[in-house]
Amino acid sequence: MAASYKTCPVAAVEGQIKSIFRRWGMPEPAVEASAAVMLWADLRGVDSHGISMIPALYARLRDEGAIEIAPEVRVVRDGPAIATVDGGGGLGHYPAVIAMRLAIEKAAKIGIAAVTVRNSHHYGAAGYYAALAAEAGLIGLSTTGVFSPSVVPTFAAQAMFGTNPIAFAAPAGRNRPFLLDMATSTIAMGKITLAARAGKPLAEGWALNQEGRPETDARVAYDARMMTPLGSSRELGSHKGYGLAAMVEILSTTLAGARFAALHDKPPPDHHDVGHFFLAMDPGAFRDAGDFRADLDAMIDGLHQARPADAAQPVLVAGDPEADETERRKRDGIPLNRVLIDEVAAIAARAGANFLL
Amino acid sequence: MAASYKTCPVAAVEGQIKSIFRRWGMPEPAVEASAAVMLWADLRGVDSHGISMIPALYARLRDEGAIEIAPEVRVVRDGPAIATVDGGGGLGHYPAVIAMRLAIEKAAKIGIAAVTVRNSHHYGAAGYYAALAAEAGLIGLSTTGVFSPSVVPTFAAQAMFGTNPIAFAAPAGRNRPFLLDMATSTIAMGKITLAARAGKPLAEGWALNQEGRPETDARVAYDARMMTPLGSSRELGSHKGYGLAAMVEILSTTLAGARFAALHDKPPPDHHDVGHFFLAMDPGAFRDAGDFRADLDAMIDGLHQARPADAAQPVLVAGDPEADETERRKRDGIPLNRVLIDEVAAIAARAGANFLL
Repeated sequence: MAASYKTCPVAAVEGQIKSIFRRWGMPEPAVEASAAVMLWADLRGVDSHGISMIPALYARLRDEGAIEIAPEVRVVRDGPAIATVDGGGGLGHYPAVIAMRLAIEKAAKIGIAAVTVRNSHHYGAAGYYAALAAEAGLIGLSTTGVFSPSVVPTFAAQAMFGTNPIAFAAPAGRNRPFLLDMATSTIAMGKITLAARAGKPLAEGWALNQEGRPETDARVAYDARMMTPLGSSRELGSHKGYGLAAMVEILSTTLAGARFAALHDKPPPDHHDVGHFFLAMDPGAFRDAGDFRADLDAMIDGLHQARPADAAQPVLVAGDPEADETERRKRDGIPLNRVLIDEVAAIAARAGANFLL
Repeated sequence: MAASYKTCPVAAVEGQIKSIFRRWGMPEPAVEASAAVMLWADLRGVDSHGISMIPALYARLRDEGAIEIAPEVRVVRDGPAIATVDGGGGLGHYPAVIAMRLAIEKAAKIGIAAVTVRNSHHYGAAGYYAALAAEAGLIGLSTTGVFSPSVVPTFAAQAMFGTNPIAFAAPAGRNRPFLLDMATSTIAMGKITLAARAGKPLAEGWALNQEGRPETDARVAYDARMMTPLGSSRELGSHKGYGLAAMVEILSTTLAGARFAALHDKPPPDHHDVGHFFLAMDPGAFRDAGDFRADLDAMIDGLHQARPADAAQPVLVAGDPEADETERRKRDGIPLNRVLIDEVAAIAARAGANFLL
């Protein structure tokens, strides 16, 4: 499958996202938040979480009435170090940005804070929120539930969790922030979709069939929609990936009072009620902030200088490839698949928005 | 290798641990803390972290002067939601119990709290501290650094992290607490030691050789002491396990101001300066505490009732096997390897402590 790409200016991608959301009737603060999170993903090369989300999910959610386009976001519990936010049934980016900013503000005063969000939906790249904290000089952590289960617990033949990501960021001094942004599944669903389209087999350990057995036929795996948790098999530690997925669900869903998707046979008729979790910590509360940054620099340098198994492939630190890609794309533009561009064009036309790509 | 076991009364194991530590000159509060953490591991079937730690590590650390037997544990930073504890160079259990209790106390008042510990050492089973929080009705999380690197970053041929565990616990209602306690490596070093002794091959993906290539010869892997991070290979997501190991190191070591072991060619002549991290959160601060417990019960029940791949092996929830084992061992006693018993007997004799097993 030879995909054809067009490289679009960053401002055009940003403008296209915003123009569609505006035409949908989304209020300006939510437009700004959603566009910032999505553009961040497109710049980092995380193409699955950028403008592609509009045809892949958001337009459908809007058509089905599963999201509020102009949600009322409310802080329903508030304390010096915690808060709970009700997302009002809209997309997740806007309440998530509010929640992480609240956590940052509180943590800067008292050392640590956590904020949960319920009654929300897909919030894009988890790493964006962790990175917000690192930009403010804090450690950030974010997790989210997912409205549709696709990950199978060890010993099960049934998907019970979403890809339930964990993002963690910490500010360095000379170096870029440490930025981990990972699904707790072995791979992203997108890899199975791509292999199925290309007629290629999957690697052993990525996915299961309906019987809960390892499956390498991408078409069968695509239909079953059952991925392994990180670790891939019991022998290689899938119970750990499963445990992490459950931890993320407890933080994002149970603590927030959102809906555990696997216990609902089909999506509820109204909102999916996805939950998120945000944590910020001020290193300067625990020790001298400059010493923290210097020690993190030393760790990052030590990892970069670790002896490589292959001299041609140096050791990387979480966030390195995406930060490099961001520099490239800010300079050269964002390559978009022409199929995606056509899908976006159709959605823009239907919304009465200008086509900018 | 047919190991021979003797089943010892719980009180005898507890008494033996305490008598040796007392004879070493450890103050009573530290004796109580260390014995509680170690006995908890022995009851749960986590034999690697119970009384076996005395011959496996603690006696040697004492002989080498690498730990203070009567450390001065001090709270060096203190706020409404954070604290930093100096462990005084002793074993980790005592400052770790103090730190988690501080976190629990603060979180019960303000909703969340984190406490770091530096200048410490091996603190036993990470799960013990997370479980302390769950017993108090709170969510608990703990991580620790390790004084000796054994886990190799993706693309590297050099160990840079310890097994860097993550423990996470949450209180349910009808059900036992959710309790995840996992190393961020694919397996524990003990599995390689056992296979090397038994002359058995390792599973592909567990360990590497000195060149950073996958190694299934247990003797070679034992000598190399280089394990894979969770995920085991790049294709199956080892960069995620590596990222989690680094996250644990940042929380436990960098945030606490402890020593990143991989940057020191050999252990320092005095203390190893291991760091730990403890987090407690009160679900009742974010939503109704009873609703949280009810929702967690529903999740745990849902997981137990998930369709199994094999009808003979139901789906488990993190902590299930260890909680079952605790019930058995509380009733029947703790089976100890006779080689271990002999080693403990020799250490007890040398310390002038009674032999109680």
